[in-house]
Formats: sequence, structure tokens, C-alpha cells
Amino acid sequence: MANITKKVSWSSRGDESGAGEGTPLLNGSEPRVPAQLSGGITVCQVGRLSTVDLEEEITTEEDSARGRPKEIPHNEKLLSLKYESLDYDNIENQLFLEEERRMSFMGFRCLEISRWVVCGLIGFLTGLIACFIDIVVEQLAGIKYHVIKENIVKFTETGGLSISLILWAVLNSSFVMVGSIIVAFIEPIAAGSGIPQIKCYLNGVKIPRVVRLKTLVVKVCGVICSVVGGLAVGKEGPMIHSGAVVAAGVSQGRSTSLKRDLKIFEYFRRDTEKRDFVSAGAAAGVSAAFGAPVGGVLFSLEEGASFWNQMLTWRIFFASMISTFTLNFFLSIYHNKPGDLSNPGLINFGRFESDSMEYNLYEIPLFIAMGAIGGVLGALFNILNYWLTIFRIRYVHRPCLQVMEAMLVAAVTATVSFTMIYFSNDCQPLGPDHTEEYPLQLFCADGEYNSMATAFFNTPERSVRSLFHDSQGTYNPLTLGLFTLTYFFLACWTYGLAVSAGVFIPSLLIGAAWGRLCGILLSSITSAGTSWADPGKYALIGAAAQLGGIVRMTLSLTVILVEATGNITYGLPIMLVLMTAKIVGDYFQEGLYDIHIKLQSVPFLHWEAPATSHWLTAREVMSSPVTCLNRIEKVGTIVDTLSNTSTNHNGFPVVVQVSENDEPAKLCGLILRSQLIVLLKHKVFVELARSRLTRRKLQLKDFRDAYPRFPPIQSIHVSQDERECMMDLTEFMNPTPYTVPQETSLPRVFKLFRALGLRHLVVADDENRVVGLVTRKDLARYHLGKHGLEELQLAQT
Amino acid sequence: MANITKKVSWSSRGDESGAGEGTPLLNGSEPRVPAQLSGGITVCQVGRLSTVDLEEEITTEEDSARGRPKEIPHNEKLLSLKYESLDYDNIENQLFLEEERRMSFMGFRCLEISRWVVCGLIGFLTGLIACFIDIVVEQLAGIKYHVIKENIVKFTETGGLSISLILWAVLNSSFVMVGSIIVAFIEPIAAGSGIPQIKCYLNGVKIPRVVRLKTLVVKVCGVICSVVGGLAVGKEGPMIHSGAVVAAGVSQGRSTSLKRDLKIFEYFRRDTEKRDFVSAGAAAGVSAAFGAPVGGVLFSLEEGASFWNQMLTWRIFFASMISTFTLNFFLSIYHNKPGDLSNPGLINFGRFESDSMEYNLYEIPLFIAMGAIGGVLGALFNILNYWLTIFRIRYVHRPCLQVMEAMLVAAVTATVSFTMIYFSNDCQPLGPDHTEEYPLQLFCADGEYNSMATAFFNTPERSVRSLFHDSQGTYNPLTLGLFTLTYFFLACWTYGLAVSAGVFIPSLLIGAAWGRLCGILLSSITSAGTSWADPGKYALIGAAAQLGGIVRMTLSLTVILVEATGNITYGLPIMLVLMTAKIVGDYFQEGLYDIHIKLQSVPFLHWEAPATSHWLTAREVMSSPVTCLNRIEKVGTIVDTLSNTSTNHNGFPVVVQVSENDEPAKLCGLILRSQLIVLLKHKVFVELARSRLTRRKLQLKDFRDAYPRFPPIQSIHVSQDERECMMDLTEFMNPTPYTVPQETSLPRVFKLFRALGLRHLVVADDENRVVGLVTRKDLARYHLGKHGLEELQLAQT
Repeated sequence: MANITKKVSWSSRGDESGAGEGTPLLNGSEPRVPAQLSGGITVCQVGRLSTVDLEEEITTEEDSARGRPKEIPHNEKLLSLKYESLDYDNIENQLFLEEERRMSFMGFRCLEISRWVVCGLIGFLTGLIACFIDIVVEQLAGIKYHVIKENIVKFTETGGLSISLILWAVLNSSFVMVGSIIVAFIEPIAAGSGIPQIKCYLNGVKIPRVVRLKTLVVKVCGVICSVVGGLAVGKEGPMIHSGAVVAAGVSQGRSTSLKRDLKIFEYFRRDTEKRDFVSAGAAAGVSAAFGAPVGGVLFSLEEGASFWNQMLTWRIFFASMISTFTLNFFLSIYHNKPGDLSNPGLINFGRFESDSMEYNLYEIPLFIAMGAIGGVLGALFNILNYWLTIFRIRYVHRPCLQVMEAMLVAAVTATVSFTMIYFSNDCQPLGPDHTEEYPLQLFCADGEYNSMATAFFNTPERSVRSLFHDSQGTYNPLTLGLFTLTYFFLACWTYGLAVSAGVFIPSLLIGAAWGRLCGILLSSITSAGTSWADPGKYALIGAAAQLGGIVRMTLSLTVILVEATGNITYGLPIMLVLMTAKIVGDYFQEGLYDIHIKLQSVPFLHWEAPATSHWLTAREVMSSPVTCLNRIEKVGTIVDTLSNTSTNHNGFPVVVQVSENDEPAKLCGLILRSQLIVLLKHKVFVELARSRLTRRKLQLKDFRDAYPRFPPIQSIHVSQDERECMMDLTEFMNPTPYTVPQETSLPRVFKLFRALGLRHLVVADDENRVVGLVTRKDLARYHLGKHGLEELQLAQT
Repeated sequence: MANITKKVSWSSRGDESGAGEGTPLLNGSEPRVPAQLSGGITVCQVGRLSTVDLEEEITTEEDSARGRPKEIPHNEKLLSLKYESLDYDNIENQLFLEEERRMSFMGFRCLEISRWVVCGLIGFLTGLIACFIDIVVEQLAGIKYHVIKENIVKFTETGGLSISLILWAVLNSSFVMVGSIIVAFIEPIAAGSGIPQIKCYLNGVKIPRVVRLKTLVVKVCGVICSVVGGLAVGKEGPMIHSGAVVAAGVSQGRSTSLKRDLKIFEYFRRDTEKRDFVSAGAAAGVSAAFGAPVGGVLFSLEEGASFWNQMLTWRIFFASMISTFTLNFFLSIYHNKPGDLSNPGLINFGRFESDSMEYNLYEIPLFIAMGAIGGVLGALFNILNYWLTIFRIRYVHRPCLQVMEAMLVAAVTATVSFTMIYFSNDCQPLGPDHTEEYPLQLFCADGEYNSMATAFFNTPERSVRSLFHDSQGTYNPLTLGLFTLTYFFLACWTYGLAVSAGVFIPSLLIGAAWGRLCGILLSSITSAGTSWADPGKYALIGAAAQLGGIVRMTLSLTVILVEATGNITYGLPIMLVLMTAKIVGDYFQEGLYDIHIKLQSVPFLHWEAPATSHWLTAREVMSSPVTCLNRIEKVGTIVDTLSNTSTNHNGFPVVVQVSENDEPAKLCGLILRSQLIVLLKHKVFVELARSRLTRRKLQLKDFRDAYPRFPPIQSIHVSQDERECMMDLTEFMNPTPYTVPQETSLPRVFKLFRALGLRHLVVADDENRVVGLVTRKDLARYHLGKHGLEELQLAQT
């Protein structure tokens, strides 16, 4: 499996258009008059839409479809055809319109109310999960650090600290092993922070199994293990993924994994509604993680919602609020202070008092400079992680290897930490009101503690808080410098392991460390008397710079940091810093999440078409020829079309022959593979309808019941007799698909596609004949590279 | 003019379609085969798009087009045809595409940078304006209150306080007179808070003169006069309008009023770009007014941007941040504390310390009940104001009457305040660290002050702050009750006067008063010892409830209030309260801004089509028949079409005859009135181009120079010879207008129209022939009334 590159079928555009059907290679520049083929199938023009996800039927194919790291093509100049698109556009067929028209005003009211109920539930459950993670991590980490501390204290006197080191390394490795095994063997999609996956989902890409219950369970257990295992990770990122899974589950009113159907919320069983709820779930996750409900809303909007809707946003905000409130409430009970709602999020940066933390106008250039440093360091982090990921794809793709790597990282982390603490001689007096949770005395005098241990011998969240708030002189510069250096490489090595873990907290920690260092240096440069360079302030700015340099989020990150610090005063500096970090970082390398999305070759649509793409038109970007179906089509033809594994289209324009002569057929609708499968399953044939008059009419409910795991065509048996029957698609097709003329420029096509969240966009000529079909991959293929507009290649992986 | 109703031409749908052209009345249900008329004009189907705004050429018409209150039809079941639509869709004609294709990647970079620069400038200037208003108001109000206080002190001893009253009333009336005169006589659009107008602008409706420099000057001076004049108004609402005007001015790089063209930012001279900047300006205004940069962004997005764009939002945020920063910085200098950036906005609610202001779970039902009260009171406020507005439209429409009414209100406000203070015997001890700016002793003992005066004898902002923060026992319940009652009616009477003024602060003040009252009553009901019912907390909740009940904003208001109080802890309660207030209030009456928008019959598009409108299709809603133009059209025909005052279309589908026989013409593009006018002005005729080869080719610059005040057709002279020339529209028309089939349901049409911010949407049949045109008014016409779906009538006013 090491030679994965050979499996990647490097198909160029021309290859793809002509594949399977034996159609002569078309360059797609000239529309071609469609021809009626002998098989009865109207090939207007054939294009590959995207590979069908055969779900879990073909077991030999399953592993390769699972999106395990080993399957990632190692070249970001590819676009995978394996990802399907979500359909944000309602299929307004006759069934749907009839249902909507039947529904009374009160019916819509009830729907609206149930949307609110669902969002409330999402927030509540997400908050509960966050609470669970927090408490379990705190308890387990407490036990772990307690045991190790006892051990260290014992052996500091007697000698033989290597035993403590071994104990520490073994404890870490065991926790990480558990976390890594469940991820690598049970659900590989639960690896990492999940933010790239949720970004893709909200963008409209269907990532297989990303919002399943199993993923949630693995994610939650995994993140507990990796944080307790002492890795350089945070528990915040995975909350976003968890919230999204909760949302996808709750909103559907059933669980396919548990085989339970509560028969509620059936109206929400389609991509449009589900995606709205997943936005709310992601926001609730951010809200629970950082205590930032507004930041959560902005995260969802920044990453996802292409069409802004006031009510939707308000619901997302409600879910966020409930989530942070729930977490807050239960944590207050856990901490025996019921009603004290002052722990808004998983991470608590502590309160920055506005009086002590003013900044001055002349500090702003300093902040901007720190932003630039953060951008450079972030880019370095991303480049190193990029190389590491390529290496992992090539050589560390088997689950057992992945587990071993994770354990190795855990052991190394423990060893490095121990060594740093051991050789550090930065002793600080232990004040009466010290905030250190596990102060290590080690070789310090009595009443003192090892300062390096505050940073290393602690959960990363606490270390960040210490760096922000400990008073001046708590750390000496050497300690901070060494810590930054080691933690930088540890965090970089850790991200991408087969464990559930976030990168937010490690980034903040690195940034806080060098930020504080900057603050100390500035203080020492300027007159020692003035205290304007409060190291805590610079730690905050450094943390923002480093995080911004790595993830390159902007608006939402500003608001998240402002909310997490509970101080609005730093809004402008944080924004300036994040912007500088983004500009500087983008000069070298993309953001971390974007790198991982690109390495998975996901057809991700950005906000706008590349600026210099006005010379491209729909004619050039569309797939053509397109496989079309007649409005009344033979069952055999449909089955053959669907079974054609070499094409695997997902949407078919429906055409109608207006006159008897050879005049080409006109577009009259669009139908999806999933709809055809349901129709075939229920044998909705014209002949049968005539013979059995009492037969139940197919309803929208049948489509909803099958959603989202439509059976593959192979599982549907169609007899030879039935193949000769006819199917009338009129009632089921979308009769008013959006169309564009061939001359439409790419930015215009892009805008329509993105604003409405389409999956298929029909390109028609001025006679309303189908000449092509634009799908997500046709648009995602063009991107701005270093040498102007570049075109990605399409691959079957 | 009292019988304004007679001037309103109550035209039904049928009337409108058949008007002018003498075309037989069509009900628009069946497409009609177009006929070539003798005049050379291809009447596909004729529809009224919207009345041309003849700008300031026809002076007799000017007054009526000015949107003065007297012109508002007094029936909200009408939809005015006088408002044009903005075009958020780029006109991608050949000229545009050529320019875009010529532009290098660096060119786009520079454009992006200049967008940032413009946003920075917008923020800076908006902040400066806010600073100017704040300082001038403070100075003038200080002088006023000082003079009156001296006077009162003098006459309290000697008797004859009626002289003080007269002094107060005269001072107030004179300020208000000045403010009212400039508004009523110079720029009536500057009346009120400007938020309804900006909402409409961001929604895509072109409100004449709303973003002009003159409006800004009148607005700023007007708001100073009305606040200093002691009216029950705030200076915050107008900031939003001011920010929008600044944005519209700065982004165009020229001022038509000042006749200056800086020849910069020419690329931004079109609706798309301008509207983006106006969003930023509005956000900067909110940010400066409330110190709420995030709230400002959310306000803009909630009210405006239909298509969410990450970069745009980030720029809006930047403008907001710069705005609040600028205000902060200059105010810190003004207050002699340079660098102390703790005055984030015009209003300063003071800092709510999180320690003292915890809330408990059992208080949440109380908050919700207060939200309901706020909803009821808000609805009452709106109903009263609605009746008052109708009354004003009928009887108080002449500027001098308006000025007199404003002066009357000012005098009454002073009198009522004085009476309340005079008869109040709520004396409070004047502590050593009292915060009252102008403590009035009046009949109180030495060392005491009149508590009623704290509320009345003060700018409203200060009164709000006192109600939030004054310690328990500062006010007695009777004082608060009386104050609430009087201020409620005063504020209600004031809103809608011909003065620049906001409704935010009066609403907050009313709410804070009765909220504090609730707090006091709750304290007295429960055991007197416990202090959980901090009156300041209840004042805040009451303020939120009242404001929410009046304006019915939700998400952005939550964030604005959270940011203004600087305390995130109250996020959830405030949200619950605002939601309750909205639900309860909506049961009785719409929000105040929506009422005023409706009373002006603006074709405002909501976020979604009415829920129960699925049975309507494009066929029913579209205007038809449509006036089409040929691709190569006779100049005379074009001039006649544009001059036809009975139709006044603004967009014309361009069609082309494919074959010689009578087959109907196919759609090939769309051209706007404004483009045709520029073409006629530059005499872009086929014959002239042939004769004069050296003639300069028309460029995009010519269109930009004419934007946005295109001359009316009457000002363009076309000789009889020229009328026989031909015009080739190919290069200038938009060759790829969006089209929908006739069967498309209304929600689907609505979604496309709204998501892309269209102005014209062509309805085509399956032969690509034009059968109708959907414009804003066709969609805005349908709304959910109390008895299900209602259709508004169209009126020419």
C-alpha cells in the first residue's frame, strides 16, 4: 500500500468526459447535437458528476471509501471525484409543492417552533457533552498528575528520577494508545479536530460518516484520552465536530446506527434543513468550547452559510446561548457553586480587568509586528505539518502504525517535558495565594517551585491561563524561550496523529509563551520602572498572533478571543494582529485547515470565483455531454444508466421531445439518482399503476425515510419483465431547475451556484436544449495559484 | 392638500399592465405571441417596472418626489411604484468583461486594498462625526442646564418659578425650532432616526437623496438641536444614517453636491460596490453610537446583506473597529485622558461588574415576564405612534406646521418635566461621591436633591446610566412610575416629528424606569434582607424589553446591548427577553421601523417568501406584457420607449429575430434605462460609427461618470435625422440575464431574486422567448396578513 500513487487514476478533463461510454473525446468547446442511441438512452452530452458512494454494501470497497489517511492522494493539485455534494436547493417537484400547498399557516408555525425546539436540544446536548469532557478530563488528569507528583517527590529525595520519567511516559502512552486505537480502528474520520471536515460539510461537500453517532462517541472518548495522555492538544476543536454530529442526529429524529426512528422531525430529513441544523451545532460547539456564543454564530456563518437568513441566524444564536448556558450551569453545580455562571466555556482565559490592561496608541505598531511574527511562525508550523502529513500518507497509513506513532509522540512529549523540567533551574517563590495546581518543588528550595513545570506539568489550558495572568517576573526569559521552542515542534508533530485533538490550545500556548517573552524583553529594554509592557497583555497578543498565523481565521477568531477574554477593549489590537498574521502567513503557505482540505482533494468552493477568471465561460467549465433521461423513460434504461459504474452520475436532466421529427429534446426538469433509486425500489411504473388502481401513491415520506442512506442500485432487483416497463418522472423531477446560457462567465456561474447552494446547474442553449451540466467540481477546479489561474486535475480516489 | 387621498391613483394590477400602450388588458395568465408593431418596437409584453425618478430636473415634480411626509399614502395596503430598485447584480456586458479580462492579478489586489482603505476612511470619518456630535451636545446641554439651574436656584428662594419654566420652555423650543426648520425646509429625508431608510437602502430600494452630503449636514445639525432641545430623543439612531452617507460619499471619490471629482475609486461607481460600502458605513455608525463593533456588523448583516461574503464582512468589521477606536481616541483627548480608551461609544452604560450582577436560574422566568411586558408596552407605543403618523400625514404635512408641532412638543416636554419635578417630593441625600451632573435642590433640604430631576433634568443618556447604576433606594417607586408614564407618551409623541432623532435611548429610558420599578417591587415583596433583586439589573432587563418591544430587532440588538454593557454574562437573559418581547409584540403590531416603512409603501423584500405562497408561480406574479427592444434598434423607437411617461420602464429585455418568418424573437440580453440614456447622450449610433472612424469608443468610464444621477430622457436632444439611425446594443446589454420558467413557484423566484439581489428577472418560456418580467414590486406585493396571504395594491405615488 506504500505505492498509493499508482492507484490514483490521473485522468485529465478529456479522459473524464469520454470515459465509459466510448463517446468520442469532446473538448467541450462546441455544443454537439444530441443523438438518440440504440439503447434508448438520450445522450445529450455525457459528463461525470461524481463517484457514487456505494455506502457499506461492497465491503471490499469500504475501506478505501472510508477516507482513511492512507487514501489521501499526496498531491494537492488533484480534485477527488469521490466526494458528493449536498443539495441546498429544495427539490420543488409536484409532491413537494402539493405538500406545501396543503400545509396551513399553522402548520408552518409548528414547523418553525419545532426548529427552535431542535436548536434548543442541540445546544443543551452539546453543552452536556462539553461538560462531560471537561469533568472527565479534569478528574483523570488530576489523578495522573497527582500520582506522578507523588512519585517525583519520592524520588527527588532518594534519587532515581528516571523511574518517575518512565512512569510518566507509560501513563501518557497508555492513555494515548486507547485514544488512538479507537480512532484508527473504529472511526478514522474522528481523527484531528474535525474542523476541516465540518468546514467541508458546511461548504456543501458530503464527507462520508462525518455526522454519525459512532463518530461522536469515538471523538469524545478520543479527545479525553489524548488530553489526559498529555499530548500537545486541546479539547476545544473537537467540540465543534461534536456539536455538528449532535445537530445532525437530533434534527432527524432518528438514529440509523441505533435503528430507532422517533417519527418526529420528518420534515427536516433533507440536506437543506439538515445543513442548517449542522450550522447551529457547530456554533453550539464553538460556544461551549470558548464560551463565545457570538463567536460561534460568526464561525458558522464565516465557514458555512452561503445564504444568510435572519431567522436561521437567530436560531443558531439560540443554540449557542443554550449550549454555553448548559455548560455553565452544570459546571457550577460540579464546582459546588450552583448559580455562579462564570465558567462560560471549556477554556477559561480568566478575566482581564480593563483597568489594569489598557493599551496605548504607540503599542499598536508593536502589536502589528507581533502579528507578523505570528504569521511567519504559523506558516513555518504549517509547512512542517504539511511535509509531515505527506510523509504520513506515504508511510504511516496502517492503523497499527498510526497507533504506534501516537504512543511514540506521547512518550516523547513526556520525556521532553521531564528533561526540560529537570534541567531548568528557574525557581520561583510559592506565594500564599499561588494559583498553580500541581506545583513541583523538585530541586528548588523549600517554599519555591519549578517555573518550567507550570508550563509543562499541567493541562495546556491551565498553562495558557498562567501565562496570561501570572504576575511579572514569574517566568524567566530562558524558560519561556525553551518552552516555546520545544512545544512548537511537539505541537506540530502531534497535529495529524490518529487521535482526536484540537490545535487551538497548543497554538495559543506557543503564542502566549513567546508573547510573554516579548513583553519581558520590552520591559527590560525600556526603562525598568514603567510597567506599560504588562507581560500578560503581550502573552494575549502573542497567542492571537500565533493562532491566527496557523488557522488564518479572522472575524470569528477575533470575536471568539474577545469573548473568551471577556474584554472588548482588545478588539482592535486582536483584529489588527490577526489580520497581519493572515496577510504575512498567506504569503508563505495556506492555513492549516485549508492544507488538510486540499490534501484530501475535497472540491471546496470558496466565497468568490478567482478574480482573474472572467475569461472563462460556462461553455468551458461545464461537463458535457450529459446523460439525459426522457420524461417517460424505460425502466431498463434507467437501471443501466444508474448501474454504469464508469460514469456514476448523480443528477440527470429530464428532457421531452416536443415534435416527432429529429428536433432535439428540450429540458423539462432535473432528477437525482437518489430519487430514481426510491422510485425503482417502490416500482413506480406506469404499467403497474394502471393494473393496480388501489396501489398506494408514492409520497414524500418514502423519500424522507430513505434519506440520507439511499440503497445502491445493485441492491435493487429489477426483473426482465419490469425492465420493459416505463417510468413517468413528471411528478418527481424538479420541473424548474436553474439554467444558465453557455456564454455566462465563470464568476457569474459561481455566484449563482454558491449563493443558492446548488448541486447541479444545467447549461442550456437558446433553444432550451441541454448542452452541459456544471457541478461543484467544475467550479472548484479553478483556483488562483502562484502563477495566476490554475486548473486542478480530477482523480477517482 | 388635506385631501391627499384623491391624489393617490389606486391602480389595480390590470390597470397597470394595460396602461399607456393601449394594449388590451391581459391578466398575465397566458403568454401571448409577441407582435411586431408599426413603430418598430417589439412589444413582447408590456409591464410597468417602476416609475422613473426624474431627479431634480422637473422642478414642479420635485416636491412631490421628495418623499415629504405629506406624500406618504396613509394606507399600508399600498405599494408605491415611485421607488426604484438598486442593482446588486453586475451588468456583465462586453465592456465590463473586457475590462475585467484586461485587469491583471495585481490590479485586483490594488482594488482590494483600496476597498480596505475606503472602509478605514469610512470608520474614521464616522467616528469623527460621532465625536463632534457628542462634544457639541455636551457643551450646549451643559450651558443650557447650567443657565436653567442658576435660574431655578434664584427663583426657588424668591418665588416666581414660573419664570424658570418659561425660560426652560423657550430655550428648548428655540433649539428645536432650528433643528426642525433645517429638516422640514431643507432636507425632509433627514427626519427621524434614518434607520428605516437605511434598512430600505440595504434591502435594495433606492430612496431618493438618502445618502447625499446635504442630508448628512442636516442630520448632524438636526440631531444636535433636538437633543439639546430636551426632546425625548437619542443621538444614536442618526449615527447609523450618518455612517451610511459617509460611506456612500467616500467610496465614490467625488461629491456631486460639491462638484468635486477626485478621480479615484471610479471602479466603485455602481450599485453593487456602493451598497457594500453603505453596509460598512451603517455598521460603523452603530459601532460609534453604542461602542459595539460586532453589533454593528450584525446589524448590517441582519438588515442588509443578502449574500454573505467573508471578505466583505471582514471589511465591515474593520470599519466598525476603526470607527469606535476613532471616537474613543478623540474623546479621550477631549476628556484630557489621552490613551484611556474606555469610552467605546456615544452611549456609555457604565461598567456592569460581573461579580455584583450575577443572576440566578429562578430569575429567568421573571425576565421572561418582563420581556412580555416590554412586548405589550412596545406594541402600545407602536400603535399610538401609528395613529399619530396617520394623523400627521393627513393634517401636519406643511413644513411650517411641522416646525410648529416640533416647537410645541419641546415646550410641552419642558413644562411636563418641570411640573413633575415641582410636585415631586422625593428628596435624596446628596452623597459626597454623587454622580449627578446637575443636582437640583429645589424644595429639598440642604444636602439633598430632587430625585425626579435626575431623570428629567438631564440628557436621556445620563438618565439611563443613573437608572442602571444608582444604588438601591435612590428612587422611590412613585417617582419611577410617574416618570415612566409621562416619558412614554412624550417619546411616542416625539417620534415622527420633523427633527433628526433616534428612538433607542428614549425606549431604553422608559424600560429602565419601569424595570427598576419592578426590581424595587420584587425586593419589597421578598424578604427585605436579601439583595438578589438588584434594581440596576432589572433596569437593564426592562430597558432591553422595552427597546425590543418597540424596534423588534433581535440578534444584533442582543449583541449591541451586551457590548454596550461590556458584560457577556447577560447575553442569555437579554436574548430571552428580546425574543419574548418580539413574539408578544408581533402578536399586536409590527415593529416601529416596519410600520414606517409600510406607511411609505416601500417595496421591501423580507428574507423569505410568505410561507403559504407555494401555490403562486412566476406566471401569476410577473408583469406582462414586457416592452422588449431589438438588438439593433432604431433610435426613434428607443427614445419613444424611454419617453413614455405612462410606463417608465427601467429595464428592457433585448431580443433577436432568429429567422425571417414570423417566429417569435428570442431573448438575448437585458439593458437598463440608464445605459440607454448614456448611449443616446453619446450618440452611439451605427451610422455615426461608420462615418467617423476616429470616434472614441464608448467606455465603461462614461457609464461610471454618469452614475448615479443619470439625466432624464427629456434633457437629451435627438434630432429627426438621428431618430432614423440604428443603435447596436450588443456590446452594452447584459448578455446573460438570469431567467426562470413560468412554472417556477414564488418562493423559488423569491430565493433567486433575493439571494442575488436582482432588479429584473426575466421569465422565459421553453423556447427562450420573453413572457414576463419579475421586479421587486411583484415580489414585495405578497405578504402574510392576518387572514393568510394578502396582495398589496400598487400605487403611483
